[in-house]
Amino acid sequence: MNKRILIIGGNAAGPAAAAKAKRSAPDAEVTIIEREPYISTGTCELAYVISGEVDSPEKIVYFDADSFREKKGVNVHINMQATGINRKEKTVSLEHIETGASTNLAYDKLILCTGSKPVVIPPYQPDLNNVFYLKNVAGLERILDFKKDNTIKTAAVIGAGYIGIEAAESFAKLGINTFLLDIADHPLPQTEVEIQHLVEKLINKNGITFIAGANKPDISIEQNSIRHIKVKGNSFEPDIVVAALGFIPDTGLAASAGLETADNGAIKINNKMQTSDTNIYAAGDNVMITNAVTLKQDYLPIATYAYKGGHIAGANAAGENEHFQPIVPNVAVRVFDHFVTNVGLSTAQADSLGIAYQSVYATANSKVPVMPNNSKVFGKILFEKESKRLIGAAFFGTNEVGGYADILSTAIRFKVKATELVSIDYNYTPPLSPFVHLLSILGKKADSA
Amino acid sequence: MNKRILIIGGNAAGPAAAAKAKRSAPDAEVTIIEREPYISTGTCELAYVISGEVDSPEKIVYFDADSFREKKGVNVHINMQATGINRKEKTVSLEHIETGASTNLAYDKLILCTGSKPVVIPPYQPDLNNVFYLKNVAGLERILDFKKDNTIKTAAVIGAGYIGIEAAESFAKLGINTFLLDIADHPLPQTEVEIQHLVEKLINKNGITFIAGANKPDISIEQNSIRHIKVKGNSFEPDIVVAALGFIPDTGLAASAGLETADNGAIKINNKMQTSDTNIYAAGDNVMITNAVTLKQDYLPIATYAYKGGHIAGANAAGENEHFQPIVPNVAVRVFDHFVTNVGLSTAQADSLGIAYQSVYATANSKVPVMPNNSKVFGKILFEKESKRLIGAAFFGTNEVGGYADILSTAIRFKVKATELVSIDYNYTPPLSPFVHLLSILGKKADSA
Repeated sequence: MNKRILIIGGNAAGPAAAAKAKRSAPDAEVTIIEREPYISTGTCELAYVISGEVDSPEKIVYFDADSFREKKGVNVHINMQATGINRKEKTVSLEHIETGASTNLAYDKLILCTGSKPVVIPPYQPDLNNVFYLKNVAGLERILDFKKDNTIKTAAVIGAGYIGIEAAESFAKLGINTFLLDIADHPLPQTEVEIQHLVEKLINKNGITFIAGANKPDISIEQNSIRHIKVKGNSFEPDIVVAALGFIPDTGLAASAGLETADNGAIKINNKMQTSDTNIYAAGDNVMITNAVTLKQDYLPIATYAYKGGHIAGANAAGENEHFQPIVPNVAVRVFDHFVTNVGLSTAQADSLGIAYQSVYATANSKVPVMPNNSKVFGKILFEKESKRLIGAAFFGTNEVGGYADILSTAIRFKVKATELVSIDYNYTPPLSPFVHLLSILGKKADSA
Repeated sequence: MNKRILIIGGNAAGPAAAAKAKRSAPDAEVTIIEREPYISTGTCELAYVISGEVDSPEKIVYFDADSFREKKGVNVHINMQATGINRKEKTVSLEHIETGASTNLAYDKLILCTGSKPVVIPPYQPDLNNVFYLKNVAGLERILDFKKDNTIKTAAVIGAGYIGIEAAESFAKLGINTFLLDIADHPLPQTEVEIQHLVEKLINKNGITFIAGANKPDISIEQNSIRHIKVKGNSFEPDIVVAALGFIPDTGLAASAGLETADNGAIKINNKMQTSDTNIYAAGDNVMITNAVTLKQDYLPIATYAYKGGHIAGANAAGENEHFQPIVPNVAVRVFDHFVTNVGLSTAQADSLGIAYQSVYATANSKVPVMPNNSKVFGKILFEKESKRLIGAAFFGTNEVGGYADILSTAIRFKVKATELVSIDYNYTPPLSPFVHLLSILGKKADSA
């Protein structure tokens, strides 16, 4: 009998695992189970569909069940929920979301790609008529339907992390009066405080009202909708509320099967993506992975790592022997015409880990100043005090900060010292790059720090 | 008596040397001699003044003699030509360009920053009324004056290297019918042939007529102007001709003083920027420097290396002990809305050096394809056959290729293998960066090459 590889979850890690497993073992019977109607969707593009920058949600559904089945030779079951794992019998019990019909599927190797779920905090209940969570295409479609049926003059976004910033920007771009609330003092609390200030200034300039320290908003609910929010001297009536309070691993299935999990609920895996049951692999937003800077386990729910992990889990489930390399976290977010990039550790993380480090920061030109497209770019680097080895960086600027982050990601992975940033030869032509590069300035500052 | 540090040449290396020498030895008497009316000019921005992107030549004169003198505490003599060096007496003979008055200046340490000069080939004589060389602000002003006094409908640019491409683009942007001639088969012969094709297509699309193999144009000169060019089936009457045939070291002064030079005429220096006379330093487009990839001497007339070299020459002339690090060549040029970046060695260079290498190339998305600003980016990497160590790369795309080049420059400097490009964590957000990075694709191809 052919090897049966069963994959639970069809967003980023799942399809990557399925496609790779089928390529590695063409004779295997590979099956994806997905509870939503779509598989292989672009969850990082959700906000851009709200703003209309991407003009239809269909554009971010990269495969439907049929086309994936056809192109990859993989069985796909959508609208199907896995309800339990029998590790002894090596079966998964399934229930059809619409019909309620239940069935069992046997596996030789199981891959859990159940992802993450949004943090839900009262009073932002998802069953309220005008409260939404931006997590998947189904959720996006609910927002788009609501937007079609209602005039939205005022929006409230709860939580000013990456997703909250993106959602607020989308509303502001549509001319909607947008309030962005966070319990923190500034937006984007994950990044460096200097960049938080720059982001706050930029979103304010673009018409978003940021409300800091918003831990106890006074909220009135009428007719199953949030009608009024009073917080920190602001009082407004939101037509729509989007909650963006972060994500937690969606691992109920794994936990009920007795697989080992970390304190946050994420599944523990080895570098072959194997769980505590060697026949069960896991990949995506539901697992702990190794941080290359600290070599400790970390929770990094990012689509590109999910894809990498899915690929390796699929290969190994099919009989190969691939290893997941520790990750240098490298995260980017757009804020209007600017971008924030965070690489490696932040100041807050380095502090909480008790690392002996130093940091320097600077502002420089992105291009040659006389060129019309020049702008200012801010950067901060963190490095170990003794060895001067780079451990983190953050940037705020225009599109050049993507490259800056990737240079730092490369430098961190290959254990380059902060002081060595001076010796790198950066490209130079006035409409693209500055005469003296920000990273060179930071390297020089690190030398005298 | 205070130490006398004399610097010949005031463009990129000279002012860097002067400013650094004065900071290192505040008591020293530091003097710059420059034969043109300007010092510290942006020679890389010349073409953008022609197109009007930079709206005045004054904007690229970063210091005049007075302001540099005042801000840096350095003596500046403009319109002054150095005519000889007496190494025994440690004096330099000078002649004023306008008055012809001659004088001698004594030095304790001399720094030669005499730069490069354009290659001049008949019939493109600079004394023709409508023939120009784009080398410095004075030359730019001659072009601008000519442009003011004459209607330019048709332009011919001779030489399709970096400067030729920039000049042709400037004319085309002004709506001028532009012919770009080169003896090579495609424009930008310095880069990879695949990119040459892409550049040719792009400049054609933007209205430039590229004429390949133009080694014997039939040129008529009337009234001291080039009036008619017939070449390869094209026949046109240029109102203006810009010759961009490359640069050679301007080292007549050094040679006549008996300093050691390379075959191409560039001054030989050690890593302290000292010439064969330990009291004479040299930096800029007039010296040979060490290529970090080959560890051989190379001629790399690029402003950023001139600046680095000037800085070190200035420091050492003032008594410090700084060392010039070998350079990973990293050169960029804009071509309309695209850029070309070249890092390390090209295929042609690797071939001529007899290196055992492999190369792979690929085309990828610059962003997530559904985002409206996505475009295609082409890349090629070169790596040693045995060790897989990266030795070169070239890219053609939009502004992301600046970052790509700098990642490769970092990777080459720190001896990263081509196959390790897969393990780098690139930043990811749909409006800035793709889900799967071109460098990751290239790394994977290198693995199976």
